[in-house]
Amino acid sequence: MATKPGIPKGTRDFSPVEMAKRNYIFDTIRSVYAVYGFQQIETPSMENLSTLMGKYGEEGDKLLFKILNSGNFLSGVTAEEWGGDNMNRLAARLCEKGLRYDLTVPFARYVVQHRDELTMPFKRYQIQPVWRADRPQKGRYREFYQCDADVVGSDSLLNEVELMQIVDTVFTKFGIRVCIKLNNRKILTGIAEMIGAADKIVDITVAIDKLDKIGLDNVNAELAAAGICEEAVTRLQPIIRLSGTNKEKLAVMKEVLAESETGLKGIVECEFVLDTLEALGLHNEMEMDLTLARGLNYYTGCIFEVKALDVEIGSITGGGRYDNLTGIFGMPGVSGVGISFGADRIFDVLNQLDLYPKETVTGTELLFVNFGPAEASWCLPVMAKARQAGVRCEIYPDSAKMKKQMSYANAKAVPFVAIVGENEMNEGKITLKNMVTGEQALLTPEEMINIIKK
Amino acid sequence: MATKPGIPKGTRDFSPVEMAKRNYIFDTIRSVYAVYGFQQIETPSMENLSTLMGKYGEEGDKLLFKILNSGNFLSGVTAEEWGGDNMNRLAARLCEKGLRYDLTVPFARYVVQHRDELTMPFKRYQIQPVWRADRPQKGRYREFYQCDADVVGSDSLLNEVELMQIVDTVFTKFGIRVCIKLNNRKILTGIAEMIGAADKIVDITVAIDKLDKIGLDNVNAELAAAGICEEAVTRLQPIIRLSGTNKEKLAVMKEVLAESETGLKGIVECEFVLDTLEALGLHNEMEMDLTLARGLNYYTGCIFEVKALDVEIGSITGGGRYDNLTGIFGMPGVSGVGISFGADRIFDVLNQLDLYPKETVTGTELLFVNFGPAEASWCLPVMAKARQAGVRCEIYPDSAKMKKQMSYANAKAVPFVAIVGENEMNEGKITLKNMVTGEQALLTPEEMINIIKK
Repeated sequence: MATKPGIPKGTRDFSPVEMAKRNYIFDTIRSVYAVYGFQQIETPSMENLSTLMGKYGEEGDKLLFKILNSGNFLSGVTAEEWGGDNMNRLAARLCEKGLRYDLTVPFARYVVQHRDELTMPFKRYQIQPVWRADRPQKGRYREFYQCDADVVGSDSLLNEVELMQIVDTVFTKFGIRVCIKLNNRKILTGIAEMIGAADKIVDITVAIDKLDKIGLDNVNAELAAAGICEEAVTRLQPIIRLSGTNKEKLAVMKEVLAESETGLKGIVECEFVLDTLEALGLHNEMEMDLTLARGLNYYTGCIFEVKALDVEIGSITGGGRYDNLTGIFGMPGVSGVGISFGADRIFDVLNQLDLYPKETVTGTELLFVNFGPAEASWCLPVMAKARQAGVRCEIYPDSAKMKKQMSYANAKAVPFVAIVGENEMNEGKITLKNMVTGEQALLTPEEMINIIKK
Repeated sequence: MATKPGIPKGTRDFSPVEMAKRNYIFDTIRSVYAVYGFQQIETPSMENLSTLMGKYGEEGDKLLFKILNSGNFLSGVTAEEWGGDNMNRLAARLCEKGLRYDLTVPFARYVVQHRDELTMPFKRYQIQPVWRADRPQKGRYREFYQCDADVVGSDSLLNEVELMQIVDTVFTKFGIRVCIKLNNRKILTGIAEMIGAADKIVDITVAIDKLDKIGLDNVNAELAAAGICEEAVTRLQPIIRLSGTNKEKLAVMKEVLAESETGLKGIVECEFVLDTLEALGLHNEMEMDLTLARGLNYYTGCIFEVKALDVEIGSITGGGRYDNLTGIFGMPGVSGVGISFGADRIFDVLNQLDLYPKETVTGTELLFVNFGPAEASWCLPVMAKARQAGVRCEIYPDSAKMKKQMSYANAKAVPFVAIVGENEMNEGKITLKNMVTGEQALLTPEEMINIIKK
């Protein structure tokens, strides 16, 4: 026999149980997006490479999956391009299209392309796979789903408030306890202004983030090593040692950033979001976290990230405000804010905490044993009735040995088996066996359906 | 301003209304598959090219979208391969992966790869996009969805019966009147045997199919032109002129194919399927159609196709029995049967006949007008309550002019608008405006929710 066929590394097959769990995740997120007035869109898996290139940094360009032009893909490619060592340039000649790398850039492209049809503010959600030619590793795949919601065309902070409500509602539905971390890019900009080192903001947040692990002295040493002058490190001290409630943190920040207009604006924005949500009463805790920076450099206002409290795993949701995402496609001045749920990590968390509701797996509820053509014919109209009533049922297609049919039921964890032989046919009834308790009862079709639907 | 960005030809964006309609189609098919005991799987968008190549004929190989290897894709490619004119060979050196072309081959690969985990017979459904580098034209896209269900590991004709029930149920739910056409590859083989021209079966079915349009003489002339000898054309006459009920047709066929064991087997199979379904009582008509051949050469038994009765459009669903699909991956002897709903064409039919249920489009049901920060704050807990009750609602995020907010509600076809100013806040009530009738009423939050949920 030939060797077993496989699939490309970093990709996955999803079997029925995994699919049922994933559908539970997507359906939950979808239903919450919907009650907040977001509507679904989908964009093509392929975008023109001109849409994708240059949007994710140099590293991102390399991680784009590119699609070989169909037909004569060599047409127009010069010997110099072949022979040269500029792989990116050659790739661009061989390929016009690439696979979607995230949902944000295609969404920006969508907004610009459909601007005349859209009513602003536009609230959309999108649940689709994305592809990245990353080195595969545990929990990192080359094909994975993103579940994004964005509002564009409004700079109101009510949008931030609603996105945090969505996060809170979704994780409450999942039963996952989380901490929602909030920061604001304007505050980070304010800090950079204050110490006169705009390019050092990442070094600062990374160093501060280590406070618990390495202690204040080592943090200060790291800051100095990153090229931040002594005076600036001194001025940073209240920020590094920031603690207490959100209100206390913001009070300290206000003093430290008293001279930065931008920084103060960021603080006011966070205050509005936190105060409004406090009045509404969330199920999960929100925490001002100055070490939160988020890598994507298109964020300009509030940024947020969600951590699970009971599982060691990275951020399971994140997002933020961007002020000029559509500018890259020639449509400036459109402010937006969005979030993205990490479906794969949520899947892992739900598995680890065993939080899937029992009804998640939607397999067959009722298997009819097949004793032969006459019995099978008798069962078919009964099955039609059961299906009409919403019962997921099937008949074993062949009149195989009883043992084989019962082990099929067991392997599929079917909770009820219907047994119809000559006696049952004569009486117009079905012997229903409960596969969990082992109980059997002789029932009319209606009685059987009622028991299963309970 | 830069030119508007676009998307690759043959691909589409789906806007909220289109998405809602597509979800209605997918959800309907999904729910019927589920009550018949089928379970969902998903496979990766990318497969190894070795899995895909050679499975769809020479033309199919050309229509595969191939993905450029990441990193140094030139590595190991010889000058001869560059310079040569064997584009397929060069493509195979540059690309290891390709996009899924249909759901059947990946499913066969899945079955073989997971054979040790699967309980046979295995009933799976799969709803995912596929990609083909076809020349785009009206109704033909480069990215489109297939909605397949297959049973493998059973050669029982009950599977064919159930798939026809599924077809009947799905189109009844859609309200689309259809004719389900049935044929059997064994009958076609029998005909070919009978006239001693196994390679002419496609010419024969194509010619017979034209009977209504061009008349018997011209059909016979076409058969002769296709190289079928006079004697064979004479023997084909009862088949060409076949008419009447399914029973009458099968009776004639039985006589004509009396000497072909294979042909008779095909007739018996069709009889079983038709008789069983007649006893069950379908909503739609089934018709024996000898001109039905279906292009894919892996079919070996019953084949079927569905035509809409009230719209001029090609086949909207099709499928059949195959006896050795997994053989290509080294696992012989697994018989299967499957169907595939054409979601894009069903979308067009539902549009043309205007058959979407009113509740398909799931946009915002209730918009809160925003008069300012105090009023908005007052609305937020009311909205939380409404959402808890499942009402899809939103607040206009900015306190823009009333006219602007109302035209936002109109553009989104929001049926109810909630107006909360100082008077309402003092009374603890909401003025609810019905946007269809123009009626207004002052209501408590609970009263408002009840009216909208009705």
